[in-house]
This record gives sequence, structure tokens and C-alpha cells, in this order.
Amino acid sequence: MRVTLADIVAALGGQLLGDGNLAIERIASLESADASAIGFVAHPRYRNQLAGTRAACVIVGPELADEAAARGAAIVTPDPYRYYARLSQWWAPRMRPVARAGVHPSAVIDPAADVAASAHVGALSVVGAGSRIGADTRIGARVVIADNVHIGARCIVHPGAVIGADGFGFAPHAGGWEKIEQLGGVRIGDDVEIGANTCIDRGALEDTVLEDGVKLDNLVQVGHNVRIGAHSALAGCVGIAGSARIGAHCTFGGGAIVLGHLELADHVAISAATVVTRSIHKPGLYSGVFPIDDNASWEKNAATLRQLHSLRERIRNLEKNGP
Amino acid sequence: MRVTLADIVAALGGQLLGDGNLAIERIASLESADASAIGFVAHPRYRNQLAGTRAACVIVGPELADEAAARGAAIVTPDPYRYYARLSQWWAPRMRPVARAGVHPSAVIDPAADVAASAHVGALSVVGAGSRIGADTRIGARVVIADNVHIGARCIVHPGAVIGADGFGFAPHAGGWEKIEQLGGVRIGDDVEIGANTCIDRGALEDTVLEDGVKLDNLVQVGHNVRIGAHSALAGCVGIAGSARIGAHCTFGGGAIVLGHLELADHVAISAATVVTRSIHKPGLYSGVFPIDDNASWEKNAATLRQLHSLRERIRNLEKNGP
Amino acid sequence: MRVTLADIVAALGGQLLGDGNLAIERIASLESADASAIGFVAHPRYRNQLAGTRAACVIVGPELADEAAARGAAIVTPDPYRYYARLSQWWAPRMRPVARAGVHPSAVIDPAADVAASAHVGALSVVGAGSRIGADTRIGARVVIADNVHIGARCIVHPGAVIGADGFGFAPHAGGWEKIEQLGGVRIGDDVEIGANTCIDRGALEDTVLEDGVKLDNLVQVGHNVRIGAHSALAGCVGIAGSARIGAHCTFGGGAIVLGHLELADHVAISAATVVTRSIHKPGLYSGVFPIDDNASWEKNAATLRQLHSLRERIRNLEKNGP
Repeated sequence: MRVTLADIVAALGGQLLGDGNLAIERIASLESADASAIGFVAHPRYRNQLAGTRAACVIVGPELADEAAARGAAIVTPDPYRYYARLSQWWAPRMRPVARAGVHPSAVIDPAADVAASAHVGALSVVGAGSRIGADTRIGARVVIADNVHIGARCIVHPGAVIGADGFGFAPHAGGWEKIEQLGGVRIGDDVEIGANTCIDRGALEDTVLEDGVKLDNLVQVGHNVRIGAHSALAGCVGIAGSARIGAHCTFGGGAIVLGHLELADHVAISAATVVTRSIHKPGLYSGVFPIDDNASWEKNAATLRQLHSLRERIRNLEKNGP
Repeated sequence: MRVTLADIVAALGGQLLGDGNLAIERIASLESADASAIGFVAHPRYRNQLAGTRAACVIVGPELADEAAARGAAIVTPDPYRYYARLSQWWAPRMRPVARAGVHPSAVIDPAADVAASAHVGALSVVGAGSRIGADTRIGARVVIADNVHIGARCIVHPGAVIGADGFGFAPHAGGWEKIEQLGGVRIGDDVEIGANTCIDRGALEDTVLEDGVKLDNLVQVGHNVRIGAHSALAGCVGIAGSARIGAHCTFGGGAIVLGHLELADHVAISAATVVTRSIHKPGLYSGVFPIDDNASWEKNAATLRQLHSLRERIRNLEKNGP
Repeated sequence: MRVTLADIVAALGGQLLGDGNLAIERIASLESADASAIGFVAHPRYRNQLAGTRAACVIVGPELADEAAARGAAIVTPDPYRYYARLSQWWAPRMRPVARAGVHPSAVIDPAADVAASAHVGALSVVGAGSRIGADTRIGARVVIADNVHIGARCIVHPGAVIGADGFGFAPHAGGWEKIEQLGGVRIGDDVEIGANTCIDRGALEDTVLEDGVKLDNLVQVGHNVRIGAHSALAGCVGIAGSARIGAHCTFGGGAIVLGHLELADHVAISAATVVTRSIHKPGLYSGVFPIDDNASWEKNAATLRQLHSLRERIRNLEKNGP
């Protein structure tokens, strides 16, 4: 693939400093860029990456315009990282085949499912009765959309995802478990992306809900009757237990866990591998991870941690009574 | 769907207080119930939910019979939560299609597999040689049952589960890894439920075993030669490393991890995200989770935690020698 | 299946002490072995297992040769655990069917994919355009190899794995997320094993790379542009966030998490469930796990942990000023 800087700017805007006829063959990080690549500086704090790069052109913010132009071509734009995102979207269909509208012949679609004509369903996927797939949504290969799952427009579902399996519901009885049939469905808004092998359970009575713009990475577990607010993003291996209500614009680092029935306000950020054990009503960043250490140090500190409460008593006692 | 309270009580028992001709169109939580819904109060401690609900009928225990009847129809039963479970089972086949006995034409069944006539195998699933699927067991869409996996009666396996892939076994050799072929199989009892995208590895030499009534949620990992006792329940994202032996009637919160070769007694409960690093011989609830905090507080406490052992020495020193 | 000790030693070497005509019908742990089984003692520290076993033959190191021979047949070899691994490899194709070269008719292979003639692709798997599967590689059932994924020779990919789904990349914009198309691919070396339902994302610009001999267990998540050095092994449920660079000969216990953009040196070992929050430049074992305790003790210690920083101040104050 080979385009010119003029092509790029014509499509995506931005102020071009330098020769519009310059040929670009790839997008690259500044570190690995060669003379036919275009790169970007996401933020002025990365300005030192400019010095060493061999990129033909660098996308920069106004603060770095002069610096970038001094070393070669540049595209100046208020948000270089977003420009890179839009460039990648413009680039992708030019460099590789696009999933076409329609259902792959190997997919198994229930006659009572409703797949939009502009949607794509990949090879060996399954769509159940009463389910709806919205316009321009792309379901990858080997996805299961169970019965009564509604997916909005422009969503992307990656291979191996399972949407609408039973929630984990049982009533204890006589030492065993009585199954609670999961009678709800799943409702997913527009512009939602769902990662590979991620699972979203159907609701017990009401539906499990993902609002518009939610992004889930791979191997995420969303329990029954969870509600995730618009534009929240969950990194890989996150688990959200049943009936938790996550606000809008929340973010979760990889491996975080949210216990059941909790409520998280909008704009809450949870660090990776943190376990949310209580509702959070105030926006902000929350963490709870045991710090990594060399194993010997960890062992000593972890052993002492098991006596921490009594250490506090000893401090109190010292404060009151002295040694 | 539309049934009467008399239909429900005729099928499931319980003492009906109120008009048997009342029409019910859905099961709902008391909070979201409307005048055509039936709901339940799982425990007297939730009695305050009774006040606000618009449900036509509420399933309650004897303690709340009068209170419930004062506001509308009621079904009185010793265990309302179990009654709800049984009601959901009675309801499900009336409101949606039931998986029929037989193998979906798109499934790939080895000629040397033995699938009970009353079992169901879903679309695009695979059953390998020497495997057995018991009576009335329902295998969902896109499941892999590898070779030599025996599954009992009345089990449910959700989409994407993989049962019988190789355990993770290698002998270190010359800086690399020599594969240990996994020659055992998997044996699963009756009434076991296995969640979406959950993995149960085959044994190295002997079999991996899940006893009757075990319930696994989604994205659970069960290593080779693990043994899980009857009626134990594992929530989403739990990982059980190889050769661990879990007792009967154990429960695991989401994301808990059990290290290899450990032994857990019957009736052990492990909190979510807790890491089991030693065998547990006594029933009870066990936990080990770093408490979540605002990020700044967490950072300060986590940094101090790395010096906890030396803090203990300083306390000792103060106790002995004073300041 | 029935072989003689002479057959085994002829194929795999080692010094046979005892009768070569002895018939062996299974490999077993010493604990469960019967008189037609062969077992092994992986290390002299397990010598006490020798006493009780009924195994016909025991594979041992030179240190235990006399002891083993005193109780029955023995094969003496410098590394008994590796001998067992090689025996399992010799045994497997004799006891069960071997995956044959070729593509299962139910698999969906893009015409622009290149699958080696000696490779196997299992039932209901998908291989995308521009992907390459090397000689003697075995792709299990229900695997997705997306576009532009290169897999080397003698690899094993277990069912449900997804290789080459999009990495999780978005630019924040106006409260939502602008998708960054993932234009890189995945490159996997020779002799790599990839567990069931494990996900390896394609790179954003450059490729995600797994070097030769890497072993991944089930339900592992490898983010975009991660690089894993040769012969590193990751146990189940491990998550490696985007752009992390893992050295060679590293090991990760189950459920460990590595944050994005970190660098780990060669020969680093990470304990199970440990969260790697900073780069590690020195070989060794690293840990960070909250110790498990009975729930009441945990609660008291966890509550105190949230005041740990202020406890340190109180100790300081006691040291300076006394009670």
C-alpha cells in the first residue's frame, strides 16, 4: 500500500507542513519507523521521541509543530492520538479485506433471529431465536449469540465471545443446588465492542444491559443483570459479578473484580487487579493490590501482615503505657 | 404467556392466600414488578420490599404470610427462594423453546462417541472418540468435548466450554520444555453445570474428576487431575491448579485461585479473589484480599507494607528498650 | 495396550534392572500403580514413595537405583521426570488415535491461508487470509486463527483459542472512544503450545510475538504488541497487558497479571496471582499476594492495613518522643 501525505490530509484534515507528494507505505511507532512511515507524538511529554525517528512524517500537536517541521514533514492537529486512530480506520480497509455484509454460510442462524442486512456474521457463529443484530454490526467467527439477545448498530463482537449464556443462579436446597432458570435476556447498545472469548450472561428475570459505547476486552466475565453505563471500558480478564451496576465513563484495569450487587458511580476508575468489595459513589481512581517484591521480602511482610491487628494493639499500648 | 395463581399452586404446591383466578404474566423482582407479576421475598430480612411492590402475588415464608396477604395475593411456602427456583423451571419451557433431544446437524461427533438418545448436543459442537454423554444432558452450542470424557446425566454445558484439552505438563530440559502427554481423561458426575468458555483439562495419568452436582460458572479453569467434591460451586474466573483436591459443598467467590496439589476439606468457603496457598482442613470462610481504597491512600499503605517486617522489629525494640 | 520393559528401554534408553519381559499396561503415579504399571520418582526427595508402591517398574535416578531394584524392576536414568515425559510421548500414539495431517472438512480455511501439508487443523476451526501454519503443527477443534497470523512448526493450539483478534486500542474523544484499527499481526515461533480458550491479540502497528518454545496454559490473555521470549511458560488465567516485553525462560504462576509496557528480564519467575506493576531487571522469584486467613482475622488485618501509613507515623513518633 502506498499513499501520499496529500491523500491523508484530504481525507482526515490537519495542517500539512512539508511535501504533499511524499509517499507513505506504513503507519509505525516513531521508534521503528523508516523513511516511508508516518508516526505520531501522542502528547508533548513524548517530544524526545522526535529526535531519533526516521519517519517521513510525524503527526503532532501545535506545541511541537516547529520542532517536528524542522526534521521533516508533519501534520499538525489538536489531538494527534485521535488523528492516529482515525488514520488507522482510513488505512485498514485499504490494506486488507473488509468483512462484507451478510452471514457466512457456515454460521447457524435461527429462523426467528433478525440480522440487519448490513450486518456481518462470521464463520461458524450461532445466533439464537428472538435475537437481533443491528445495522453495520460485525459478529466475528465462532461467536455465540444465544436466544433473546439484542445487539445495536455498529458493534463489533470478536471471536469466541458468548453472549446470553445462563447466569449463575441456584437456590441452595438439601445440600445441593436447585437451578434458577435464567429468563431474562441481554440488551447491548450501539457502538459496543466485545473482546474474544468474553462472556455476557443473560439476566435472571430482567435483562443484562450494556449501554452505548461500552468496550470490553478479551476474557471478560459479565454476570447476570449487570448494567454497564455508556462508554465504560473494561480491560482483559475483568469479572463483574451479578447485579452490579457500573456507571458511565468508568474504566477497569485488567483482572479487576467487582462483587455482586454493588453500585459504581460515573467516572470511577479501578486499577488493574483491584477487587471492588463495596459500592463507590465518588468519581476517582481506586486501587487495592498487594505490592510485588522479591519473594523473600514478600514472605516476611506477608507473615507479619497476618499479625497486623495485634501490632496496632501493641502500638496503642506503647502510646498509653510506654515500654 | 399467561397463567393463573391456581395453575402455579397446582403444579408447585404452597398455600395460596387470595384469588386463584388472578392472571400472572411474568416473574419479577418486587422492585420492578407490575400488577401482572409474581415476585418473592427470599428471607424475612427483606420484608421492607413488601411495602412498595405492585406485584399481583408475592411468594413468602410463614413469618410474612399476614403482612403479604394484607397487600394482595400471596403464596406461603417454607423456602420462598427455592419456590422461586422451581417456579422458574416450570416457567421456562412455557415461555421459550426447549432444546430437543438429539444432535444438531452441524455438530461433529466421533463415531466412537456415545451420546445418550435423550441428550442434546448443540450447533457446531464437537464430541471426541471414547466420550460419553449421559441421559438428558444438554451440551450447548460450540462446546468441545475432547476424547475420553465421560459426562453424567442431567448435566448442562454452556457454549464455548472446552472439556478434556491437555493439562499443562512439561518436564524442564536443557532450558526448554519436554511435553508430558496427557493420557488421562475427565469424569463428570450427574447434575453438573459448566459455564460458558470454562475449561476442564484431562488428567496426566489418572482422570480429572467432578463429582455429582458440581456447578461451575463461566471462564473457570480446572487443571489436570483436580478433583472437585459433590455440590461444590465455583463462581466466574476461578482457577484451580493441577492435582488440587476440593471437598464437597465448597464454594468459591469469583476470581479465587487455588494452587496445585492442595487439599480443601468439605464445606470450605473461599471469598472472591482470594488465593489459596495452603491446604485447608477446617470448614469455614477464608479470605485474603487487599482492601480497595482511593489510589493515593492505597499507594501510601502499599509502600509502607513493603517495610512491615521492619516496622514490627521497631515495635519490638520500643517495647524492650523504649524510645 | 501392553508392552514390555525391553520395548521401552529399546525405544528410550536407560539402564534396565530386572526382567525385560515384564509386561506393562499403564503409566501411573506410584501411589495408584498396580502390578502392571510403570511409575517414576522425579527426585530423590520423594524416595519414600518407593516403599509402598505396587508398580512393576520404577524409573529412578542413579541415587535410588539400589533401593528401587530391591523392590522390583527399575529403569535408571539421569533425569527420571524427563524420561517419564518421553515415555508419555512414546505411549500416546500407541494408546489413542493421532491427529492426522490435513484439514478437517468442517474447518473454514481462507484460500489465501497457507497450511503446511503435514499440519493438522481440527473440526470447526477457522484460518484467515494471509495466515501460515507451519509443518507438523496441530490446531485443535474450534480454534480461530485470524488474518495474518504466522505460526511456526510443531506447535500445538488447543480448542477455543483465538489468535489474532483485535488488540484493545481506543483513543478517548468527547467522552467516548475512537477505535484504533489493529493493523499488526501475530508471529509465533516453533514448538509453542497454546492452551484452550487462550487469546493472543494482533498488534496495533507491529506484530505480537511469541518466540520459540513458549508454553501458554488455558484462558491466558496476551495483549497487543506483547513480546514473550523463548521457552517462557505461563500458567492458566495469566494476563499480559499490551506492549509488555517478557524475557526468555520466564515462568508465571496462575492468575498473575503484568501491566502494560513493562519489561521483564530473562529468567524471572512470578508467583501465582501476583501483579507485576513495575519492570523487573534481575532474575529471581517475585511475589505479591495477600495471605489467606480465616475471614474474621482477615477482616481485622485488612481494616488495619488501611491505616498502615499512619501506624508508621505513630511508631516514628514513639521512637522520637516516647509515649
